[in-house]
Amino acid sequence: MTDSELPAPPHMTPDEFRRLGRELVDWVADYMERVEELPVRSRSQPGDTRAMLPAAPPEHGEPWDDILADLDRVVLPGITHWQSPNFYAYFPASSSGASVLGELVAAGLGVQGMLWSTSPACTELETHMLDWMAGMLDLPAAFRSDGAGGGVIQDSASSAVLCALVAAREAATGSGPLVAYTSDQGHSSIEKAARITGVELRLISVGEDSAMRPEALEEAILEDLAAGRRPVFCAATVGTTSTTAIDPVAAIGEICRRHGLWLHVDAAFAGVAAVCPELRFVNDGLELASSVSTNPHKWLLVNFDCGLFWVRDRAALIQALSVLPEYLRNAATESGAVIDYRDWQVPLGRRFRALKLWFVIRHYGVEGLRAHIRRSIALAQRFAARVSADPRFELAAPAPLSLVCFRLREGGDEANQRLLDAVNESGRAFLTHARLGDRLTLRLAVGHPSTEARHVDETADLLLALATDVAKEPLQR
Amino acid sequence: MTDSELPAPPHMTPDEFRRLGRELVDWVADYMERVEELPVRSRSQPGDTRAMLPAAPPEHGEPWDDILADLDRVVLPGITHWQSPNFYAYFPASSSGASVLGELVAAGLGVQGMLWSTSPACTELETHMLDWMAGMLDLPAAFRSDGAGGGVIQDSASSAVLCALVAAREAATGSGPLVAYTSDQGHSSIEKAARITGVELRLISVGEDSAMRPEALEEAILEDLAAGRRPVFCAATVGTTSTTAIDPVAAIGEICRRHGLWLHVDAAFAGVAAVCPELRFVNDGLELASSVSTNPHKWLLVNFDCGLFWVRDRAALIQALSVLPEYLRNAATESGAVIDYRDWQVPLGRRFRALKLWFVIRHYGVEGLRAHIRRSIALAQRFAARVSADPRFELAAPAPLSLVCFRLREGGDEANQRLLDAVNESGRAFLTHARLGDRLTLRLAVGHPSTEARHVDETADLLLALATDVAKEPLQR
Repeated sequence: MTDSELPAPPHMTPDEFRRLGRELVDWVADYMERVEELPVRSRSQPGDTRAMLPAAPPEHGEPWDDILADLDRVVLPGITHWQSPNFYAYFPASSSGASVLGELVAAGLGVQGMLWSTSPACTELETHMLDWMAGMLDLPAAFRSDGAGGGVIQDSASSAVLCALVAAREAATGSGPLVAYTSDQGHSSIEKAARITGVELRLISVGEDSAMRPEALEEAILEDLAAGRRPVFCAATVGTTSTTAIDPVAAIGEICRRHGLWLHVDAAFAGVAAVCPELRFVNDGLELASSVSTNPHKWLLVNFDCGLFWVRDRAALIQALSVLPEYLRNAATESGAVIDYRDWQVPLGRRFRALKLWFVIRHYGVEGLRAHIRRSIALAQRFAARVSADPRFELAAPAPLSLVCFRLREGGDEANQRLLDAVNESGRAFLTHARLGDRLTLRLAVGHPSTEARHVDETADLLLALATDVAKEPLQR
Repeated sequence: MTDSELPAPPHMTPDEFRRLGRELVDWVADYMERVEELPVRSRSQPGDTRAMLPAAPPEHGEPWDDILADLDRVVLPGITHWQSPNFYAYFPASSSGASVLGELVAAGLGVQGMLWSTSPACTELETHMLDWMAGMLDLPAAFRSDGAGGGVIQDSASSAVLCALVAAREAATGSGPLVAYTSDQGHSSIEKAARITGVELRLISVGEDSAMRPEALEEAILEDLAAGRRPVFCAATVGTTSTTAIDPVAAIGEICRRHGLWLHVDAAFAGVAAVCPELRFVNDGLELASSVSTNPHKWLLVNFDCGLFWVRDRAALIQALSVLPEYLRNAATESGAVIDYRDWQVPLGRRFRALKLWFVIRHYGVEGLRAHIRRSIALAQRFAARVSADPRFELAAPAPLSLVCFRLREGGDEANQRLLDAVNESGRAFLTHARLGDRLTLRLAVGHPSTEARHVDETADLLLALATDVAKEPLQR
């Protein structure tokens, strides 16, 4: 059959897109309006969503009314509402209207930014945004693209630490098994990166403050050196997942410099706090770091994914990750005058993620972003004050930013687990937990733009009331 | 300062989002309407985009009119229009209205699908879509989630091959250095994955047809075994980047089975062709594969990123990639009744990518998707007929799908490079190249939904006219 005899696929015309786009924008706006009323953690049971889906795909296209209706019928009941003002679990994924609009435009343009030449604006806007962000966060000048360094947007801090480790390994000399280090409070992605690269990982012990003990790090390095192994990489954490503890990066950096290790600073959650001058303690020691990452998709109002990753020596990263097949050769690359971001990440393809970051920075302005960070911290402190004023509760760790760790003093893990389950089952708030000193601890992280004082107050009220219920039930043990 | 005394950040209200969302939807619809008129490859020079951007970010939020105006002023000139009907470079990134709407809703919901419990619908819809797709492509039943296998959406086939290699390495027994294999026409991501994991990679030679020579593979494996190395992994390619050549997967699979290698089939571009029963030759041998990947974001109307990755034994993948820190523990995970997709990929976080795939399948229906694939192939054949009817041109490789490789018979690489430069500089079409038998070859890949017969005809006309110009200029050598 020739092409003219073939049935035409039902591609959407621009006018159909215009009409349906408005409907979907309205659906999202409606969602923003009603998300507060929905149970924060989904009440779906395993298999519930699939049970509502037909076993086979439709042979012929379906009407959009049906698709839209299924967003409410099939999808929403299975959503845990990360964009609810009462979502306090993990770390926030604080999206914003400006960011969603950036994602829409990026999808509409549909460019691949693997090479500069495959869309120069995609690469240059990204480099520029990373330089803007380096300035906004007051990072050492070495991370900016006008010297030997530079930044890139990746999907996550997980991928960033993997790339940093690969670059560190590539730069290593000598022989003997390679060793990497992080604290036992380091993120699971560091262990995953070590496993993927086949590099041995040592978990260094932390002090009372959940921060890495530099003397324990140096001891481990010396031991490995004595045994003929090659220490090559250390990931320090600024803002651990459990408590936002902050490793002593300066002291760690001195040790890494002394022994020639690549120091990566994983500031996935906390790093963006440095938009506020008074919070720049999160940058302490960065002048000794080889690379650093932080995720605007956690606390800076950019929807996932938008992980920023800067390196001091971009040549080391590119050397480690560059593979140049014939079909990607082009004049711009060969001129050496451009950045090809495919050499800064694991995958070849890449979306135009800089757009949403640009939209967010321009919509908010730096002062607007500072206001968001400051407000989250103030709300977290407000919550901490409420909870710690109740003699049944204790704060379980310092709260330097917007994460509060707390627990019931009495009843041990069982009582705390019951309390956590009760608040999450209520649907009125969603919190997660950590283990601190082997004790179950509740975590409340503030960061969503729609979270206001009334939300944290109501969550505190709820927790105090549920604690009374928990105390009434006999414990199992 | 308490939170009530702090300045409020300028968060967008749902109604502002409604209004601006319509403006941005209109901008995207306008873009769809006018993209055909824009020069396909950007004429931007290095630094042009950055020169239009202010050195520092704004202190205060800017009006949206300015941001929208900058989309036209700053961004568009630096865009290479992957969504133009005249984009024939690399492989297509054929987005569609339905997919862009899915991306919009996913961004609006803003959920993290790292665990089943962090949004059950995100995980279950994804598993279901992978089962739908396995059925639509007629993959062996072993890849479906109702047995020991299953599928996942990743960002790209690059990440899929990395995960497959890590799983293969994890499953390896014995000692001695590990070795992986692919053909010298395999994708660069395979080399990148080998480098990241530190596994040695052997490039196996291909025949005249650009397909891997199975006997050369077995020879290499035997040599490595004899030298005490451990062959663990082979990536076969269905649809190479240069010519869409297809490795003899069945023969390769027998060899892999004999020697205990994990066989990954990289069908990034070509795999989706199997929605059409008459094209299921792309599945030959899959019954022997351990894993397979294909990207709906290339040829199946889903905007990047949407890479599908199926494994026969999900336990092997999870075993390789699972790291379970305390804060991710939850009742659903511990019940064993759910999938946690964080264990199926490199990063921890993940977007709700199944939504756009669901939207596309439902909007088009399977017949609509088949129509798109068939139409692309017919248009490519139409172009091939036009070019090969001109005695100055030759087809440089078979065109089993929608990629045509062709070149000028006379004038060697220089003439072909001039022709390629001339067509790309015209702005009326964008093509890329390959080297076949060490000769520069032009590639024309069809797959965008808006590409019609008139576009490929005009591109053929343009090429034939430019060939006349090229022939008139004296060659340099």
